[in-house]
Amino acid sequence: MTGTADQTANAPPTLRARRLGLHSQHQAIAVMRTDCHVCRAEGLSSRSQVLLSAGGRQVLAMLYQADGDLVAPGEAALSESAWERLGVAEGTPIKVSHAPSLDSLANVRRRIYGHRLDAAALQAVVEDVTAGRYTDVHLAAFLTASAALPLDEQETVDLTAAMVDVGDRLAWNVPVVVDKHCIGGLPGNRTTPIVVAIVAANGLVMPKTSSRAITSPAGTADTMETLAPVDLDLATIQRVVDQEGGCIAWGGAVHLSPADDIFVRVERELDVDTEGQLIASVLSKKIAAGSSHVVLDIPVGPTAKVRTEEAARRLGDRLVAVAAHFGLAATCIRTDGSQPVGRGIGPALEAHDILAVLQNRPDMPADLRNRAAVLAGAALEIGGAAEAGAGHALALATLADGRAWTKFQRICQAQGGMREPPRALHVRPLTAGRAGRIVQINNRKISQLAKLAGAPEAKAAGVTMDVMLGDEVASGQPLLRLHADTVGELAYAMEYASRNPDIIEIAT
Amino acid sequence: MTGTADQTANAPPTLRARRLGLHSQHQAIAVMRTDCHVCRAEGLSSRSQVLLSAGGRQVLAMLYQADGDLVAPGEAALSESAWERLGVAEGTPIKVSHAPSLDSLANVRRRIYGHRLDAAALQAVVEDVTAGRYTDVHLAAFLTASAALPLDEQETVDLTAAMVDVGDRLAWNVPVVVDKHCIGGLPGNRTTPIVVAIVAANGLVMPKTSSRAITSPAGTADTMETLAPVDLDLATIQRVVDQEGGCIAWGGAVHLSPADDIFVRVERELDVDTEGQLIASVLSKKIAAGSSHVVLDIPVGPTAKVRTEEAARRLGDRLVAVAAHFGLAATCIRTDGSQPVGRGIGPALEAHDILAVLQNRPDMPADLRNRAAVLAGAALEIGGAAEAGAGHALALATLADGRAWTKFQRICQAQGGMREPPRALHVRPLTAGRAGRIVQINNRKISQLAKLAGAPEAKAAGVTMDVMLGDEVASGQPLLRLHADTVGELAYAMEYASRNPDIIEIAT
Repeated sequence: MTGTADQTANAPPTLRARRLGLHSQHQAIAVMRTDCHVCRAEGLSSRSQVLLSAGGRQVLAMLYQADGDLVAPGEAALSESAWERLGVAEGTPIKVSHAPSLDSLANVRRRIYGHRLDAAALQAVVEDVTAGRYTDVHLAAFLTASAALPLDEQETVDLTAAMVDVGDRLAWNVPVVVDKHCIGGLPGNRTTPIVVAIVAANGLVMPKTSSRAITSPAGTADTMETLAPVDLDLATIQRVVDQEGGCIAWGGAVHLSPADDIFVRVERELDVDTEGQLIASVLSKKIAAGSSHVVLDIPVGPTAKVRTEEAARRLGDRLVAVAAHFGLAATCIRTDGSQPVGRGIGPALEAHDILAVLQNRPDMPADLRNRAAVLAGAALEIGGAAEAGAGHALALATLADGRAWTKFQRICQAQGGMREPPRALHVRPLTAGRAGRIVQINNRKISQLAKLAGAPEAKAAGVTMDVMLGDEVASGQPLLRLHADTVGELAYAMEYASRNPDIIEIAT
Repeated sequence: MTGTADQTANAPPTLRARRLGLHSQHQAIAVMRTDCHVCRAEGLSSRSQVLLSAGGRQVLAMLYQADGDLVAPGEAALSESAWERLGVAEGTPIKVSHAPSLDSLANVRRRIYGHRLDAAALQAVVEDVTAGRYTDVHLAAFLTASAALPLDEQETVDLTAAMVDVGDRLAWNVPVVVDKHCIGGLPGNRTTPIVVAIVAANGLVMPKTSSRAITSPAGTADTMETLAPVDLDLATIQRVVDQEGGCIAWGGAVHLSPADDIFVRVERELDVDTEGQLIASVLSKKIAAGSSHVVLDIPVGPTAKVRTEEAARRLGDRLVAVAAHFGLAATCIRTDGSQPVGRGIGPALEAHDILAVLQNRPDMPADLRNRAAVLAGAALEIGGAAEAGAGHALALATLADGRAWTKFQRICQAQGGMREPPRALHVRPLTAGRAGRIVQINNRKISQLAKLAGAPEAKAAGVTMDVMLGDEVASGQPLLRLHADTVGELAYAMEYASRNPDIIEIAT
């Protein structure tokens, strides 16, 4: 079919990029005027998926349209994620067109209708997810289909492999590379820096990359950053590990299993646990990190991710089986997930706990020390540095004789120099309204309290616990202390506490 | 637990409402500053679900955060949907807090894990969906779960009932109220005004409410609006129907099955057909409209929603069975869905076709006339105005003797006065690049072409077809004509046609 009219230029017209300053997590957003000529030419409307192109880069984005002066004629205003991924400057000409059709959605639809997916089909899905081509609706459909008919072992293996393949991979020139991971966060459960110090002090290689907090009051990288630089490039990580056998670095410089971050966000919104996804999520990061042996901490408790011993055992068995497909030796340790670990919750407050354990101080939190020793013991055994059954004692000895503390200081120096974690300006106790026994501690609300006090942005902010489950308290006795840098943040946290009397439950 | 500090005011602080002018369909959006004190106090971050409250109204919204001068300190900027539903003015103080937990999501999760839902559970889901409490992720999960394990007949009945219950319901003081619906759009398939005229001319009651286009070049309401006012309130609809036995009104003034619009949008994005959802969608609107008898047009064709006769038969059987639960008598008519119907595609162009049929003009599109007569015949039979087998002939006779045309004019007068559909300023043919036979017409691309030419916003714009499947054409002969109000829109459509030579396929 040919037109009889003179054709207009075949290249679609461009718009000028404008930075909107809008934060929308991973989601790329473009805002264009309702009367925009490109919208009309391309048949675009609000909530269309659009392809933004500039200087050889392409980004898929959700289009919103706007009236009034939010966007000027000839402009396309971009969210931070779109702006950064497209790599444009103010006024850069960008092309906007319909998003190309997404062939891998046919795989999602087949999965919805009960067909198993093979490695190639899962690879296609994961590639499109990583490229940002899936909307929330598409992501939720894939994850729901994988929960309605759970991923079988082969699918879990294939999904894990696909998630590894789309990201960076690290390689180490040693046969044994040890790693650890905790399934489902528990406030204050910051064992990683202690475990790395113990394991590296015993001659094993443990190059640990950790995340920053997303919705929690602290990630391992946030805590470690109060003690030493963690924003290391790949060459620095390599040098630190060559020199000291271990590191505790932020994973941001390397992109291990980037699809995982996208899946996790949707799973959180849906509040659906899909075992296959969880396994692929955890193991893809470890495999991509080049680990040969991994210790998995599975906290079990009424407000933890895993609620029963039976569920923890089943999950552990499947983790070990899938890991074996990749030559990764995994050990699962079920731990108590009924209350926060240690005293501090918040980057610097957790760092103070870590220092107390490493320095064998009399006031150290015994639960944190013991958890770290259990996990480090398992790592020493699986990595061949201790006989079966002898790992825990070796780990405790490595703490007691100061070798872990020495190793930790050397790692901090290698990462750029050790520093003293800050202290908050304002500390205020929350006290028991009556006498009795502590029968319940709500992990989720404790975390929220620490965040209101300013964590993790304010490094020194957070909560310190004065009580544990089973403790008897008198009326007026401190239950926890709030740490904040400003009186405003202190007030927010106090106000939340007054509205939530069930953060810590006391029975008479 | 009690705080020892003086408490700040218990009421959460307010922000000043600002209208952002952002169009985001049903999705309510609030934009607040990254450093906003309310975000900090409530622990809110980008993509949190938030509850906006002002003057006794509440709206759930997606929060985005912004830096720079997009939002001023102390402001919350709202999308159009949030602005309208909250009913605020510039500067109105609004409260922003965490969205309350959504109990009905537990039902969605149970459904994902394979448990059937009862009437109460489906009711709770549909109420929350209608209230705008479900995010895209939640909606996609519910729809995916209903596709992975298809809704059984009882669930389909219960879902239909729930969708009826959350919306408005119309009531008519006659035992027989006839309705019609077409499953899956086909460009130009605008039989409704003709069917209503024929049916009402034969003494049956047919109060038809129709929708405007969402993604198509015309909805029945858009087309009818070029012939008479359609934006009628309930009292006017009642008066027109009392007087003439029928109406063709826009459904916007009444909210029949409001959850349906939300589900349909997500299903479209997912491109997943869930039979149970489709049935609940169609029947909930008919039941809410107070219909007792309904004729369902099921076009079957390679680019239609239903692809095979067998699938159409199965769908028809289930529609009839579920309708029977509500005392609604349904008849399904399978029709040809292989190409556009009539000549015009676009509001006024379709209206001209309708007038040609009603006025028995020699140039009328015979396919449109016959389809309308088949559907009207079925409606006359099911409604008791014709013997079985005699409906089609009666419908054709009602067209031939001018009674349908008279009735249509009277309905238009009652709705506020008949008018002449406009003609576009610019008409340009697209011609055959070679001689041969028309073997394929892409319904979807024909629709896109009509939209690029300006439909449905530009009432006169769209496409008229010069050929049908099987026609022999000479090189240079017109295949279709583009109608546009501006040369710019004409150029956009021409450009699209030049990039898509497969809109109409010619075999030699």
